[in-house]
Amino acid sequence: MSDATSEKNSEWMTIISFSGDLDKLWPTTILASTAAANGMDVTVFSTFWGLFPLVRDGEKIGHDQMTKMMGGMNPPGFSKAKLSKMNMGGMGASMMRKVAEKNNLMPPEELFEMSMDMGVNMWPCQMTMDLLGIRADQMRSGLGQPVGAATALARMAKSEISLFI
Amino acid sequence: MSDATSEKNSEWMTIISFSGDLDKLWPTTILASTAAANGMDVTVFSTFWGLFPLVRDGEKIGHDQMTKMMGGMNPPGFSKAKLSKMNMGGMGASMMRKVAEKNNLMPPEELFEMSMDMGVNMWPCQMTMDLLGIRADQMRSGLGQPVGAATALARMAKSEISLFI
Amino acid sequence: MSDATSEKNSEWMTIISFSGDLDKLWPTTILASTAAANGMDVTVFSTFWGLFPLVRDGEKIGHDQMTKMMGGMNPPGFSKAKLSKMNMGGMGASMMRKVAEKNNLMPPEELFEMSMDMGVNMWPCQMTMDLLGIRADQMRSGLGQPVGAATALARMAKSEISLFI
Repeated sequence: MSDATSEKNSEWMTIISFSGDLDKLWPTTILASTAAANGMDVTVFSTFWGLFPLVRDGEKIGHDQMTKMMGGMNPPGFSKAKLSKMNMGGMGASMMRKVAEKNNLMPPEELFEMSMDMGVNMWPCQMTMDLLGIRADQMRSGLGQPVGAATALARMAKSEISLFI
Repeated sequence: MSDATSEKNSEWMTIISFSGDLDKLWPTTILASTAAANGMDVTVFSTFWGLFPLVRDGEKIGHDQMTKMMGGMNPPGFSKAKLSKMNMGGMGASMMRKVAEKNNLMPPEELFEMSMDMGVNMWPCQMTMDLLGIRADQMRSGLGQPVGAATALARMAKSEISLFI
Repeated sequence: MSDATSEKNSEWMTIISFSGDLDKLWPTTILASTAAANGMDVTVFSTFWGLFPLVRDGEKIGHDQMTKMMGGMNPPGFSKAKLSKMNMGGMGASMMRKVAEKNNLMPPEELFEMSMDMGVNMWPCQMTMDLLGIRADQMRSGLGQPVGAATALARMAKSEISLFI
């Protein structure tokens, strides 16, 4: 896996964003934006549940009955992200967003945009898109080309920090 | 922790497979098999809930009443693995397996076997076996010797990629 | 991020302790104490749900109505930590503690203390404290100064092992 030919001038971090939960989108985007602000070269590879927030609010995903049903039960978009605990039908997520706002912590969708503005690579997982029926035109703009596990692995092998969140 | 005396000829990846959830068994086995296919030296250390899938379907685990009850409530084997969300009493897991099959994504038990065939080290956690009453003869064949945290740590310290999944 | 000026004499491990679940406090504290016992330089950065166990049992957290409610629904302290699955209103957590005790596995709060005694750095997340209204005087003694994401990132960039648990 020696496909990284460019010389590295800074430290690299690669995050596999797997969960898509609201409470885990914060560490992902806080770590990504803070690392970028400190000169690190950062990549976030969004896969499985972690791909749902990157779909624009209101888009209907799914290429057949089963995947459409999954998209209905787990609606995409940052605004639909649930807490991994204490979600209470969304009340917990809503409360956590209010606590964050009151304390000047940006919501994850803004930290995500800010990370992209600072040059963080946002890589959607191609296999998840194929599996769940998520089209490139349904996702928010500014993302990188969809990639597979081999590309993410090659990036991680060169990264000082690799995290699965 | 300098017990790794052999010279390294390739990059190493070590995954701590902790969760045992169906949706997390996919990234574990996809990353392991993809890395091995690309020449990496891969180890999966399966611990706690992550050890349950490695027990053969139908085996009764537990060395006393409490651990037997735990094995009853969280039955071992890949086929019993649940989704971490949207499991809905197994309906979600079953649906996800159908979506995978329809899209030619191998189930995690096959990716696991394929990973072993490609030389991925599969290390069961000795402490979890002792704790939950899982005997070596109850686990699928082809696994490595059970090891402890110190061995896993020494491997991770030499690995370019270490992930907790 | 080159603020680590001291020469390194040993391998480093940094764990982001995010979940606060009982079953994840074990790998965090087992890995931390085992690594320290083997001469590694270990840091645990406790953030979000992972900060709750570090608050002393019985303390009331929260600086306003919402955060007080959150502290009420997710009471702090190691003794209140829940299992991420099979918790069953605390019965699962209680059962797991009994299984551990019977098999001479120390509870996480003791492994935590032992880790600190062996020199593991325990860093509380400043932002989580501000967000949820957790004061330094409410947390157990022996912890390091609260730090932010940038400090944790700089430590991880120099660490042979970085894990998000």
